[in-house]
Amino acid sequence: MDKFAKSLIKEAAGRIRSSFSSELVVESKSAANDLVTNIDKETEQFFIKQIKKEFPDQRILGEEGFGDEISHLNGYIWILDPIDGTMNFIHQKKNFAISLGIYKDGVGLLGYIYNVMDDDLISATLGEGAFFNDIRIPLLTDGLLGQAIIGINTSWVLPNKYLEHEGIVKLLQKVRGTRSYGSAAIEIGYVVTGRLDAYMSMRLSPWDIAGGMVIANEVGAIVTTLSNHPINLLVQNTFIVARPVVHSEILDEYVRVK
Amino acid sequence: MDKFAKSLIKEAAGRIRSSFSSELVVESKSAANDLVTNIDKETEQFFIKQIKKEFPDQRILGEEGFGDEISHLNGYIWILDPIDGTMNFIHQKKNFAISLGIYKDGVGLLGYIYNVMDDDLISATLGEGAFFNDIRIPLLTDGLLGQAIIGINTSWVLPNKYLEHEGIVKLLQKVRGTRSYGSAAIEIGYVVTGRLDAYMSMRLSPWDIAGGMVIANEVGAIVTTLSNHPINLLVQNTFIVARPVVHSEILDEYVRVK
Repeated sequence: MDKFAKSLIKEAAGRIRSSFSSELVVESKSAANDLVTNIDKETEQFFIKQIKKEFPDQRILGEEGFGDEISHLNGYIWILDPIDGTMNFIHQKKNFAISLGIYKDGVGLLGYIYNVMDDDLISATLGEGAFFNDIRIPLLTDGLLGQAIIGINTSWVLPNKYLEHEGIVKLLQKVRGTRSYGSAAIEIGYVVTGRLDAYMSMRLSPWDIAGGMVIANEVGAIVTTLSNHPINLLVQNTFIVARPVVHSEILDEYVRVK
Repeated sequence: MDKFAKSLIKEAAGRIRSSFSSELVVESKSAANDLVTNIDKETEQFFIKQIKKEFPDQRILGEEGFGDEISHLNGYIWILDPIDGTMNFIHQKKNFAISLGIYKDGVGLLGYIYNVMDDDLISATLGEGAFFNDIRIPLLTDGLLGQAIIGINTSWVLPNKYLEHEGIVKLLQKVRGTRSYGSAAIEIGYVVTGRLDAYMSMRLSPWDIAGGMVIANEVGAIVTTLSNHPINLLVQNTFIVARPVVHSEILDEYVRVK
């Protein structure tokens, strides 16, 4: 199943790359919007067709909605985002990813984050560790929040309906720096490889995080909602993935969900 | 001079890459701090030695201070940042750049931004256009601020001593999205290739921007201080680089320098 999933991801990525014209810069954003819609849909349909051919009894939950209606997590489920980081896809032609998690009875078995343009695949198998391409990713060590770089969007600092923004302001004054890359999958990939110490988001869908959660689990990163509850893969969630101590310090001291 | 500069940059980058251990994750940030200090210094000294050998009468302004004291812009000056994005260098082992601008009597002749780990070189020659590796970069078209993605750090949204932050809050509510990559050179590189529509910073040094300014000029990006004045390469400046219409709209409507 792991080999099959990897070959599907690489083939889908090749199709996405070849859809780009040779122009370096996306000049027309409205035309690009049409483009991305088509490629998102085509890529998801490609995955579904191949998966259903190989595993006809397994279900698929995809962002574009061509998969199954999912109301429970029994059996095998493939949870897929064909293009995570759509705005980057349109504006940058890079910094987007294919995200895929394969779950059985709610337990993550296989996880993949594939940075399409960088050709970097992060993958994990339950109980067997995680890999960045062919390199084993070491277990994350604890980190100090004062030395941390966290992935967070500027919109958090403004008054919003999800969180008390005053706590976030204090958090930003505490940490060493912030980054924002515009793709949940890529930012989760940065946390599991130690390039960010935490990544937080106010609202993510199952397909944004299902692959990353399997990987996070294998490297010792902690994943919860911002209320410190387990993620429910049937609904949208608030989200944090972080090194262990950084995770608890952020949630205990700085985050207040409304 | 262009060929010589490019070969120096590539050789310096090779030395930086080989300084990394094969470990994927930087585990000890304090040890990493020592590492980066040494590599910054060694890289600058390498450049200076080679430039002085080839062009003994030309001056060099470098971040680490091994070059010349620069109090005027007469003659040839090489303005160098051996590692722009030091925190990324330490924490991520990627997303940092060598930035180099070569000026004569204050006029930018040659500019380079080299993303060391991605092996991507953006370069420009006065009057001859700009290139991403071997691909000519097209002139930037105008953009709409409401569709723009801008590079800006979260710290801007908090009260600060440089700008009225209320205007920045309004700006963030107006644009389509924000990103933050942690390297001025890389973010300028994103603007000149159309991947960001603007990049702003409260305080940059000449070596952060000298190379990027030459490139920006060749693709029609506008570079000024946040007070809409020309950049003075002898001092630190506030900074914005953007597509033409986006540049004027941001400065006219949203930025108030204290």
